[in-house]
Amino acid sequence: MSKIVDEVLSANAAYAAEFGAKGKLAMPPARRFAILTCMDARLDPAKYAGLAEGDAHVIRNAGGRASDDAIRSLVISHKLLGTGEWFVIHHTNCGMETFTDEVMGDLLASSLNTAELTPTGWRDRGGGGSPEGRYVKWLTFTDLAGSVAEDVRRIRGHPLVPGGIPIYGYIYDVGSGKLIEVPEATEAGAPA
Amino acid sequence: MSKIVDEVLSANAAYAAEFGAKGKLAMPPARRFAILTCMDARLDPAKYAGLAEGDAHVIRNAGGRASDDAIRSLVISHKLLGTGEWFVIHHTNCGMETFTDEVMGDLLASSLNTAELTPTGWRDRGGGGSPEGRYVKWLTFTDLAGSVAEDVRRIRGHPLVPGGIPIYGYIYDVGSGKLIEVPEATEAGAPA
Repeated sequence: MSKIVDEVLSANAAYAAEFGAKGKLAMPPARRFAILTCMDARLDPAKYAGLAEGDAHVIRNAGGRASDDAIRSLVISHKLLGTGEWFVIHHTNCGMETFTDEVMGDLLASSLNTAELTPTGWRDRGGGGSPEGRYVKWLTFTDLAGSVAEDVRRIRGHPLVPGGIPIYGYIYDVGSGKLIEVPEATEAGAPA
Repeated sequence: MSKIVDEVLSANAAYAAEFGAKGKLAMPPARRFAILTCMDARLDPAKYAGLAEGDAHVIRNAGGRASDDAIRSLVISHKLLGTGEWFVIHHTNCGMETFTDEVMGDLLASSLNTAELTPTGWRDRGGGGSPEGRYVKWLTFTDLAGSVAEDVRRIRGHPLVPGGIPIYGYIYDVGSGKLIEVPEATEAGAPA
């Protein structure tokens, strides 16, 4: 067994041993909201937003972007499980600001192995690449607040999203742990 | 300000006040692994797998499915940020087992508002629906262990995923908090 699997299962056994009443939680989120945020390892949405188990849906991908898959998840969250307020939370020092589709396409064509970020950009040693990376939209961005506004607008404009759901745009500061609103992004939602 | 926003910002202020050395964490995950799991409110991957801030990437969507967007995130996780082991973790009592694409298409065509799960299936009151839900693959499943195996296989077979990355298949039991391996799903990965 890998060291990582061993560590994860040990931590899980300790968590399960103290599980108690959490085993009786209902499927719909008790606090009826959802957060879309980045997969970044430094972010713990339960901690930074004060969530207990059972409180809220948490959707995460590279960048916290409003991809079709994130919108699939948000629509299920509202339509079947009753969430009525949504947050889009990107963060400072995001990896998605360090490359472009062209850079990623070139890197993957060179090698599938991990690249290194040097002062002059991403570099790898080559070998065993694939051109398939050129056919993927990686959803990078250069303007952090703008990316939050763009994603809130994309969700707001989606035909399966009811107009009455408020969608709040925020930036999480990885240096301070603080949530900072992007006021021009937030969409209050039309009265139902 | 909504009650939810107020609560989230209060919890965030308390978290940021004790942030300390977490503000100095590096972008790449320190423990070099990633978890793909469901958005379900009852799941807290940091708690159930023992993650501190900075440890691991966490990708979440409805079902914890290996969508194109989840694979986009995993490829970025390995290629740019160095993760080398991945977990796919679905869970018991998942909402994705309670409907089908046809049911969701009909519900959304009837109304965008929240439906109710009755003993005879999902029902809503109608009004203001959209046919767009019929054009979405919702990624539901009926066989929990099978869905884990299917998703691990889809990731393993992707042309941008290096053969050497182990991909572990697990089920999280919402009744006990325990992680249970799906041995037939796990792909050890070829030696590099």
